[in-house]
Amino acid sequence: MKLASLKGGRDGRLVVVSDDLAWCAEAGHIAPTLQAALDDWEHAEPLLANLATDLQHEVIPMMRFHERNATSPLPRAYQWADGSAYVNHVALVRQARGAEMPESFWTDPLMYQGGSDGFLAPRDPIPLADEAWGCDLEAEVVVVTGDVPQGATRAEALAAIRLVGLANDVSLRNLIPAELAKGFGFVQSKPASTFSPVFVTPDSLGDRWADGKLHGPLMVDLNGTPFGRADAGIDMTFDFGTLIAHLAKTRAIVAGSIIGSGTVSNRGTDGGPGKPIAAGGVGYSCIAEVRTVETIESGAATTPFLKHGDTVRIWMEDERHHPIFGTIEQVVEAA
Amino acid sequence: MKLASLKGGRDGRLVVVSDDLAWCAEAGHIAPTLQAALDDWEHAEPLLANLATDLQHEVIPMMRFHERNATSPLPRAYQWADGSAYVNHVALVRQARGAEMPESFWTDPLMYQGGSDGFLAPRDPIPLADEAWGCDLEAEVVVVTGDVPQGATRAEALAAIRLVGLANDVSLRNLIPAELAKGFGFVQSKPASTFSPVFVTPDSLGDRWADGKLHGPLMVDLNGTPFGRADAGIDMTFDFGTLIAHLAKTRAIVAGSIIGSGTVSNRGTDGGPGKPIAAGGVGYSCIAEVRTVETIESGAATTPFLKHGDTVRIWMEDERHHPIFGTIEQVVEAA
Repeated sequence: MKLASLKGGRDGRLVVVSDDLAWCAEAGHIAPTLQAALDDWEHAEPLLANLATDLQHEVIPMMRFHERNATSPLPRAYQWADGSAYVNHVALVRQARGAEMPESFWTDPLMYQGGSDGFLAPRDPIPLADEAWGCDLEAEVVVVTGDVPQGATRAEALAAIRLVGLANDVSLRNLIPAELAKGFGFVQSKPASTFSPVFVTPDSLGDRWADGKLHGPLMVDLNGTPFGRADAGIDMTFDFGTLIAHLAKTRAIVAGSIIGSGTVSNRGTDGGPGKPIAAGGVGYSCIAEVRTVETIESGAATTPFLKHGDTVRIWMEDERHHPIFGTIEQVVEAA
Repeated sequence: MKLASLKGGRDGRLVVVSDDLAWCAEAGHIAPTLQAALDDWEHAEPLLANLATDLQHEVIPMMRFHERNATSPLPRAYQWADGSAYVNHVALVRQARGAEMPESFWTDPLMYQGGSDGFLAPRDPIPLADEAWGCDLEAEVVVVTGDVPQGATRAEALAAIRLVGLANDVSLRNLIPAELAKGFGFVQSKPASTFSPVFVTPDSLGDRWADGKLHGPLMVDLNGTPFGRADAGIDMTFDFGTLIAHLAKTRAIVAGSIIGSGTVSNRGTDGGPGKPIAAGGVGYSCIAEVRTVETIESGAATTPFLKHGDTVRIWMEDERHHPIFGTIEQVVEAA
């Protein structure tokens, strides 16, 4: 089952979307918003699944689904907690600035509490007031949870995953060092994030959802040029069950919480830093990583951060090369 | 105007509460929940204010207001961002562990993004799985905002403050050092926070609300003994306008966001660390601070962190010694 929210009001209007993303059907009679459905999932899920079946059989009123009319599946959420599950990415960034990465990072997940009061729609521009802030994309996988009790195990956490999607976790790289030095995490350096137009139930993902991970290349284009094709199922040190259980260690997690994987990142075939796509590699899911590789290899970063007018596209394809979650497509604009 | 949420459903039932907290009236015909009222404040606020006047005049159906029947005014919120505006507190804690505090901490607010998906009711026990985590209370002032645009000034931020209340920002002190060392802020070390039973509009606070600060002693009792009487209007380096503008620098803030002051803390009359109440001082708003003072003065902390069975009370009184926001009263229990 695929779900989206059409623009309208603060929380959008819940619709069920066809597998090929061409059609959708209003689901407001079941739950007015995606959060309302998640709040009452045991009741809403079978009704939404029936609606999805009816839509697939074209036996109910349906309308064309245009991704540009979609707002974020959850335009605001009660929680957005983002992990750094691709430890390869963290190790590289540290290596570039000559900082040693603690060995514990391979066993103890890194995670931050993100702002969740407002997300950008998947085709919204990224409002950037100052290019000097060093704006970066971060292509990630996210899941949406049901209620998770305090102290949940990895297995309990995995069972509470309701939906899977993609994210552009926009970062302001040049504001990060000063904030991290304060120790209190990201506040100004993580502006509003963006999610894919469509979120999908794990059971609809087939083999792509396995071991608490989403498998397959995460496609990232920058200004129309292939930039990243890293496989989200490879080099993910901590699966989503482990990430959710980490968050639930000292408190319960409430339905509708969005948990992120952190920037997807694959090692090179030689075990070292990955290569750009133009050099035969799978590329990168953020600019910071290519700048890191450039720094390691040539002493200086040459790829600039995002400027006004730059375009970012993030999606994942099924076997027929159709986007599974729709496409995040954003232009950076002056705020 | 005073607002509260009675227990029921995930978001409670909005009620208007009388100034003396003795009576309340259902406000569901105006807005079913406090978040719904905040989403549409321009419309809801005058209607709620009329209801409050009618309640004061006893011309509408009313019922006794029992704080034990109140859930958190916002049982879950789209944002909880907590500052450390009482820099004196931060300086003391650093001093105790021999760490220098950067001079910038006096001009650049420290703030963290907290979990907001679930708050404890004001009389809920604090569920603590392991006493070794070092559970601490933190008595704070909070405000709830309307919508704040990206790049808002301090004056714009102040104008967007809708409600004022108190908080117990529960902290797990022994989990903090390892999390802060990772740089990504608090995740496991900040379990669910608790807010006062009642939130109050700034205009109803009279002289107590001035210069973007709440003035008057913040009362904290620990196991029935006076522990803290620090004045929330003194030594607050950053007012709420400055804190909100800090958060809004790179992104818009959505209505219903809760912004915290951080632990209230007053210097001693000699400019040094404050004294315990038993020694003639105003005491402390968290255990970490008294432990810090003990460490500075005698080389070792003697006051223990919270244990199962300990009771915390937090409130603030009006001129007639009646609680303004109701009382947070929590027992620490095994989880």
